[in-house]
Amino acid sequence: MSARRPVIAFAMTDSVRERVFPEALMREYEAVADVAGSLTEFDSAQARAILADVEVLVTGWGAPRLDAALLDAAPRLEAVLHAAGTVKPHLSPEVLERGVRVSSAAAANAVPVAEYAVAMIVLAGKRVLPIARRYSGLQDDFDVEASFPGMGNYGQRIGIVGASKIGRIVIDMLGSYAFEVVVHDPYLTDAEAAELGVTAVALDELLRTSDVVSVHAPSLPSTQNLIDARGIGLMPTGTTLVNTARGEIIDQDALTRRVVAGELFAILDVTVPWILEADHPLYTSENALLTPHIAGSLGAELRRLSAAMLDELRRIVRGELLAHEIEPDLLAITA
Amino acid sequence: MSARRPVIAFAMTDSVRERVFPEALMREYEAVADVAGSLTEFDSAQARAILADVEVLVTGWGAPRLDAALLDAAPRLEAVLHAAGTVKPHLSPEVLERGVRVSSAAAANAVPVAEYAVAMIVLAGKRVLPIARRYSGLQDDFDVEASFPGMGNYGQRIGIVGASKIGRIVIDMLGSYAFEVVVHDPYLTDAEAAELGVTAVALDELLRTSDVVSVHAPSLPSTQNLIDARGIGLMPTGTTLVNTARGEIIDQDALTRRVVAGELFAILDVTVPWILEADHPLYTSENALLTPHIAGSLGAELRRLSAAMLDELRRIVRGELLAHEIEPDLLAITA
Repeated sequence: MSARRPVIAFAMTDSVRERVFPEALMREYEAVADVAGSLTEFDSAQARAILADVEVLVTGWGAPRLDAALLDAAPRLEAVLHAAGTVKPHLSPEVLERGVRVSSAAAANAVPVAEYAVAMIVLAGKRVLPIARRYSGLQDDFDVEASFPGMGNYGQRIGIVGASKIGRIVIDMLGSYAFEVVVHDPYLTDAEAAELGVTAVALDELLRTSDVVSVHAPSLPSTQNLIDARGIGLMPTGTTLVNTARGEIIDQDALTRRVVAGELFAILDVTVPWILEADHPLYTSENALLTPHIAGSLGAELRRLSAAMLDELRRIVRGELLAHEIEPDLLAITA
Repeated sequence: MSARRPVIAFAMTDSVRERVFPEALMREYEAVADVAGSLTEFDSAQARAILADVEVLVTGWGAPRLDAALLDAAPRLEAVLHAAGTVKPHLSPEVLERGVRVSSAAAANAVPVAEYAVAMIVLAGKRVLPIARRYSGLQDDFDVEASFPGMGNYGQRIGIVGASKIGRIVIDMLGSYAFEVVVHDPYLTDAEAAELGVTAVALDELLRTSDVVSVHAPSLPSTQNLIDARGIGLMPTGTTLVNTARGEIIDQDALTRRVVAGELFAILDVTVPWILEADHPLYTSENALLTPHIAGSLGAELRRLSAAMLDELRRIVRGELLAHEIEPDLLAITA
């Protein structure tokens, strides 16, 4: 690699580039690298001409697939910096096999999701949404403690399903609250749990004993229906389930039945399908809050992704290791 | 004071004692002190007999006023531990003047309020409530970024009005987010602000430039209508105002007009009057979330208050300074 100023190109849709890479950040990329161009595809003659020189490819949502054809077109490619969440669906194994280093902004992209989950966990403990609904309906005083037994954020048990990147940020953030945090993750050892300051428990125990359950498992074949109808049935009345991960991980019909029955609270940023069919009871249930997949990076938060990959680019310029390099061995068990 | 086991009594309403001092905590008080009794008044012969011996009085909401008559009835009184928020309305100046040390759980009581405010600040940045409302109404996808320009918790400016106990906890908690925090407090020097890691600004500038304004000023004659109609008018469209302090601090009518007009968002745990009159437009405004004064300690959080005063009692037993002793000089400018 040319020691100090690598040749870079951007590859993503124009709209993603405009949203994720505002002018001020583009100037910072240009300050440390030679920008050969911005691509939306890898096949045209123009794209091929740019790829022939590229040493670092900065990608984003909507980037073309990173595969053997790209490697052939970009013989000098040494690194891919993906300014978005998981790079996995875009990435053919050949890329890593041929020694191209790949980094992603998955860690940066995890931050707003964790912040959203923690805020929802805190408000769940205070029963804010059902109390606000009742207050708005009654338009008068009522005994909130009698109406919502078990409320209050002090000593409550928070169950984290999945010690993923996001799950670990949530665990870290919850450390400054007076909660007891338990975690279920098949890949988490007791020693690792102790290091995180939490207790590893079986999923059934987590569901049976947590005041709030927050789902942070990756969507993998092994996590489909992880919290199944039986698991949903284990949750005590009054429990809140927060899902900012993937709808497929829980039995949505079983959850819906208990939420509509007034037994459970659900804060769902993800569902199956991605946008629930019109008239789905969760839209209007008193005990549910549905948001259209907004926990992840949106608006100003997109700048965190390009800033994170700029930091990676600077590490390349300085000859340092990447901070968020994808480890091939972990690809199978992460999102 | 009898060196090791002070004589203590509790003074508050029975219902407060049951809620704030569960059995397990009472056992811990009894482990370090001799409990002479539980009082709801200071006037009966029975109360007088108990007060005659009392060295430490543990008070709570609904406690009788602490005044010269109490001092006469309790000649051995050395400390009052108030397991609630501010002790000020209960406390005659004579008590401090005669050298009785007074501590309160105001710091412990500040925690849930700060947690509530921070959760609301995070969700305000994500526009969660208006997005959830629109999603529930549309029952279909929509462009959240186009609908809510400026959304996203990255680099947003959060304006804290009042570097009070609660305000300082909020500032500390916000330090782990990618926010820029500015503070208005007439008693905060630039040096103190720098120590808190924030910038002290004039109130007008705070209102004009903050994405979220969170009110943490004490209710004092000088803070009535602190954010007046002119100040409400300075806030840019799209700003969220979070008030967990006292309704009197803001011009509620001016705020209501701009919220109902769809210009501002309001998260209000406090109003004037305490419970808004029926049919007040804030109950049902799309841009408002009203809660009936639940940010403070409720439910399980009440145990934090008795635990905090138990810690103070243990300090007395060990001959240490109280951690939360009321300083007479600060009484005038704090809640």
